[in-house]
Amino acid sequence: MSAEDPTLLKLLVQSATAFERRLNDGLRDDLDEELRPAHYAVFRYLDPAGSRVSELAEAAGMTQQAMGELVTHLQRCGYVERRPDPADGRARQVVATPTGVEALQAAAGRIHEIERALGEHLGADGLQELRELLSRLGEVLREQHDSP
Amino acid sequence: MSAEDPTLLKLLVQSATAFERRLNDGLRDDLDEELRPAHYAVFRYLDPAGSRVSELAEAAGMTQQAMGELVTHLQRCGYVERRPDPADGRARQVVATPTGVEALQAAAGRIHEIERALGEHLGADGLQELRELLSRLGEVLREQHDSP
Repeated sequence: MSAEDPTLLKLLVQSATAFERRLNDGLRDDLDEELRPAHYAVFRYLDPAGSRVSELAEAAGMTQQAMGELVTHLQRCGYVERRPDPADGRARQVVATPTGVEALQAAAGRIHEIERALGEHLGADGLQELRELLSRLGEVLREQHDSP
Repeated sequence: MSAEDPTLLKLLVQSATAFERRLNDGLRDDLDEELRPAHYAVFRYLDPAGSRVSELAEAAGMTQQAMGELVTHLQRCGYVERRPDPADGRARQVVATPTGVEALQAAAGRIHEIERALGEHLGADGLQELRELLSRLGEVLREQHDSP
């Protein structure tokens, strides 16, 4: 690797961002025009049984305030709602509405379509190799994070 | 790929997030304790000659308001400042302070350290293969985004 090569972190972030934009191109047609890749962070970590805003913020590496704003936007669009947490009536949790569940299914369909199209460019072997390398990378990084 | 396999998008986002957390572990020691991976989005897209908040928001796929809050936080920590845009005196742009430039250099050093350690786990060939696959993936996705 020479000094001019982009770092692996940059390649990872650029690929993830480009994938999210490609997804957003499709979802703007299916769903709300105001949806942005940032809003996917809510759905990415949302437990089907409901999650607290604090849990979503922690999982996404965001402040509670920033995550709360994303949740409020999705709530206005009708994709999620806030309800009392069954485990602690004073706390509130975020759950997907039926419209939100449909949106998630539409997104999953689009993601698989994009991945199939990528397989045509990278080849089935290339795509499989990439999946395996990313899985190992994620495991190693999480181990190092947990026991630095 | 079976239905239970994580999507490629999920693998990309999880790897990028895990890398940013690993980086953050190191940077908290070097820099400000309140820095979070979200703040890197500012530096990732910051032009050394200065960038407008609107350009940073567009590049990161965020709202101007959300990007403005990240910039304000970094400004309070002394890493960036807002100054009049030389090209348009009524507009303002964000530039790194000398402390911000030092922080960027510290971050670059940590990123290379993490990448070197990853090479020991994935092997030099595995790391090179991953870099090449990610570069091609990013190119294909950006082409599809520009001409859907």
